[in-house]
Formats: sequence, structure tokens, C-alpha cells
Amino acid sequence: MTTFISEAQSAALVDDELALEAAREAFLATGTTFPVVIGHSSSPHNRFTLKSGSAGDLAGVKIGSFWPDNTDLPRHSSTIVLLDPATGRLSAVVEAAAANAYRTAAADALAVSTLARADSRTLTVIGTGHQALHEVRAVSRVRPIDRVLVVGRRADAAREFAVAVTARTGLPAEPSDVQAAVAAADVLVTATTSRQPLFDASWIAPGTHVSAMGADGPGKQELPVALYDRASLFCDLPEQSRAIGEFQHAPTTPVALGAVLTGDAVGRTSPEEITVFDSSGFALQDLTLAAALLRRHSSGASE
Amino acid sequence: MTTFISEAQSAALVDDELALEAAREAFLATGTTFPVVIGHSSSPHNRFTLKSGSAGDLAGVKIGSFWPDNTDLPRHSSTIVLLDPATGRLSAVVEAAAANAYRTAAADALAVSTLARADSRTLTVIGTGHQALHEVRAVSRVRPIDRVLVVGRRADAAREFAVAVTARTGLPAEPSDVQAAVAAADVLVTATTSRQPLFDASWIAPGTHVSAMGADGPGKQELPVALYDRASLFCDLPEQSRAIGEFQHAPTTPVALGAVLTGDAVGRTSPEEITVFDSSGFALQDLTLAAALLRRHSSGASE
Repeated sequence: MTTFISEAQSAALVDDELALEAAREAFLATGTTFPVVIGHSSSPHNRFTLKSGSAGDLAGVKIGSFWPDNTDLPRHSSTIVLLDPATGRLSAVVEAAAANAYRTAAADALAVSTLARADSRTLTVIGTGHQALHEVRAVSRVRPIDRVLVVGRRADAAREFAVAVTARTGLPAEPSDVQAAVAAADVLVTATTSRQPLFDASWIAPGTHVSAMGADGPGKQELPVALYDRASLFCDLPEQSRAIGEFQHAPTTPVALGAVLTGDAVGRTSPEEITVFDSSGFALQDLTLAAALLRRHSSGASE
Repeated sequence: MTTFISEAQSAALVDDELALEAAREAFLATGTTFPVVIGHSSSPHNRFTLKSGSAGDLAGVKIGSFWPDNTDLPRHSSTIVLLDPATGRLSAVVEAAAANAYRTAAADALAVSTLARADSRTLTVIGTGHQALHEVRAVSRVRPIDRVLVVGRRADAAREFAVAVTARTGLPAEPSDVQAAVAAADVLVTATTSRQPLFDASWIAPGTHVSAMGADGPGKQELPVALYDRASLFCDLPEQSRAIGEFQHAPTTPVALGAVLTGDAVGRTSPEEITVFDSSGFALQDLTLAAALLRRHSSGASE
């Protein structure tokens, strides 16, 4: 019997706690991810991505789509398909466009809770899109953030975003000049589609944690390469990060966050250390998210 | 609104005519296919394959799975996911394990109807599995087949298969020695999981058409390389056939069957010519199959 969870259902089921637990499960899983496919519709600017993998009793694929011309609907959508591990048959289909934003932000929150200084209070976010708002909300749950600085290319977008941050999180938020905002950050999150560095490496203060959430394809770049000489590098999947993530521009192989979580690798070692986490996104995050949504769905259905 | 067609529904909707028309549409389509992913569950012998593509208003992916230990259920299953071309959102999910066998056999029937001699009467099939029976049924619809010769590794399996062929098609069918069966064939279909040639190239008579349906992964092989010196080579997707299909062992690039259908390439040019078609299977076959099932589903639902 196939379970189908619609977009409206998954959007109602998801929250930060569910997403964070699913992210933790994914980063701790011993599993396999398979090559990412980047496809497109007959209009080549409408792209879809296939991320597949397996771990434990989960096997399946996330179909992420990006239709840039969407106006009434979000431009990103997401469908997770799970196979029955016993038979290979279709087990579940979970539409998860809204949930996908929680899933991506949860990886950031997991990185911040693992790598950022415990006393991180100033959160700077570069990017004013839908995902950036999710990042602020998820990160502010895991550190005592008391101020949000917002950097956007357009002043009005940054102002609107700051208002939205305060409305959503209750935190004071203000647009800021990029240099000042980067220098003041305890935690710096980039969530853009940039193809060139967003700031100068010299602006980053000792002890900052940086989460680069945007780079997910060849040629994308948010961070200055000069930062890598001063920082310890972490990511979700080292191979993928080197291939399509931020660290395609890095000279050394980053450490997997999962290895830090299990104690097999060292995370932050001093309050002055600069830590950088790159999220390129991997299939096990999608599989564990779908499984968590299915569990919550069935427990709700049986109440 | 997502349409979901279950395995039971698609199995009831599919027939040879629908599958053949979907195959023709796929082979004639101007579309794009993306790299094939070969994944597995946590038990690595349970494999799944992702074939994705787009053409016209179709975009999506077929998830094919092969769970060799299945006993009550078929070992192969298949789920086709279509995206809405206007929005990128999930449009339809079609379970299609039974239909997938029709789809694969339809490609064979299309090749035979395009490349085999019009007076082909003896059909030889090497392989006695589920798919082989579909091949016999589909091919016998497009040529005046009046005799089926069956070659299997096990004599009892070949006998049982011959009985099943007659029950299913009404055609006389008999187990045969491989050399005699290959020599007698007007149309020779191989549908095995072999990793080495199934017969000697010198046994093939002039004028034979050969459809190699089994090779779908690195290392698989059904045909003797010596055959290629004497034969004209055709396939579904030349690049894929050279990479994972039968023609990974061929010295020259085969001709796309679609180009023969459109008249952009030449098919059989004489009654003595030996033609060889390799089917490795491509995503557009799955997308057009799903679309055809959806059309039939909605026309049935509206009756």
C-alpha cells in the first residue's frame, strides 16, 4: 500500500524540531548516496534534480524542481519517493516543497549547533529570499541569537526581510552594510545563488562560524577563497561539496559534519577558530525527512 | 492535483497497442535524456535505476527496481513520476511493473516492424523469463510469425515456456537446440541477463533480424562480437547503447531507430541484410507510457 502525503499535508506536518531530528539522523546514518542528476524540462531553464540514496531501511529519491518563472507557486518544489526495502515496490510519495526549506535550514542548524561558539549572539544573513528566512529561524533556535543583521543587494528587500525576521522570530533585525555585518557576525549564513564571493575574507572576525547554504551547482560560489587559509572546513558530503558545492573552490578536503557528530573527527577547537560549513544537500536528508513526516502522519491518523 | 495510478490499475489499463503507440511516440520524440543512475538499497544486491528525461510537455523519471529475492512479487518493479511542465510540481505517479514489460517488448516490436523482413515467419527467442514471453507476444503482432523456437539453459524451463507461448499467442512453439534455432530464425530475440555471447555469429543466416533486449549494464553481453562485421547496427540511444547496452562491445556507432522511423537514416536495404537492434531502454519510453496510461485512465474515468 502506497502512502501519499500531499504538499498541503506535509506543510502542515513539518516543523523545525522534526526537521532537525531528521537532519541529525541523516548526518549520522551509514548510507550511500548515488550520483546527482541535473535535468531539465523541454524549457531548459526549468530544472529538476534527482538525489538518491539508501541507508538502513530507507531507499529512494528526491526530485527537486526549480521553475524560475513560477509566480503564484513557489519556484522550488520537491517530491520524495520511498521504496519498500523488503520488495523494491513503491512505498510512499511525499510532496515536500515547504518541508524542503525546513530540511535545508535544519542542516544549517545542526552545523551551527555543532560548530559555532556557544555564546554566538549576532547572526548575519546574506540573502533575502525564502530560504534565508528559514535559515534565520532554524539557527536562532540553537544559539542565543539576540540580533540579526541582513545583507541584500536591494535595500528595500533587506528592509522587508528584516521586518519578516522580527515577525517570524521576535528577534531585532536590521539591514546592514555588508562589511559591517560580516565583521559583527558570530554566525554568518549565506543563502544566495551567487557565482562570485559575497564578501572579503579579511572582514571575518576570529571565532566566526560561516554556513554557506547556497552553492549547489558547478560555478556557484558564495565565499572568498582566501578565507580557506584561515578556516577549518566542514561539509555534508565531502565528495559532493568538492564537485558541486562551495568547496569546488577549496584547496583541501573538508571534514564531514557527520564525523564530528560521531566523534570521529574534531570540530571547533578554540573560541578564535573560524569554522566554515558547506551544505550542498544529500539524499539521506530527504529520505529521513520523508520518513519523519510519514511517522507523524500515521501517528496523527491513528489518534 | 496529483493523479496516482496504482499497479493494479496500470496492469488493467495497459495492452500491446497502447505500449506500441507509446514506444513510437518516444522513438520519434525530440527530447533529452539525462544520465542513468544505478543505485541500491542497504542490501546492495537490491538495485534501483533512475532514468529521467524530457520531451514536449513531458518531464520526469522512471524508478525501476530489481529485488532478486522477491518470491511472491515480481522481482522487477517500476514507478514513473511526471512533473507538471508548467509548474515543476508533481503531476502524476504511475506504478507500472506489469506495464514496464509491455513497454520494453513494444520497443522490440517497433524495431522488428521497422527492420525485420516483411515475410519473417520463424521467431526464435533465447531466454525463458517473464520478459521473453512479452517479447514473443509483441513481436508476433507485427510480423506473420507462424513458429516459435525456444532456447533455454534448462530443458524443463524451455518446455514450460513453449507451452506458455502457445497458451498466450496460439502459435506453435517448441524447445530447440540453440544452433538450429538461431540458424532457422527470421527474427531472433535475446532476453537474458547473460554476460557472454549466447551463440556463434556464423550460425546466423542472411536476412535475419536480431533484437538484443537483455543488456542493460556494464559487462552484460548477449551477442557475439563477430556478428557486427556482417550486420547493420541499430539501437534506441546510441550513446547509452555504447555505454551500458549491447553495443558496448561493438566497433562502430549504431544508428538510432528513431532516425530510421523519421526517414533520416536508412533501415534494412536488402532481404539478405542482417539487422541488429539493441534496446537499453530510455526515459522517454517511460514518460510516453505513463502519459498514455493517464490518458486511458482519465477517458475511462469519465465514461
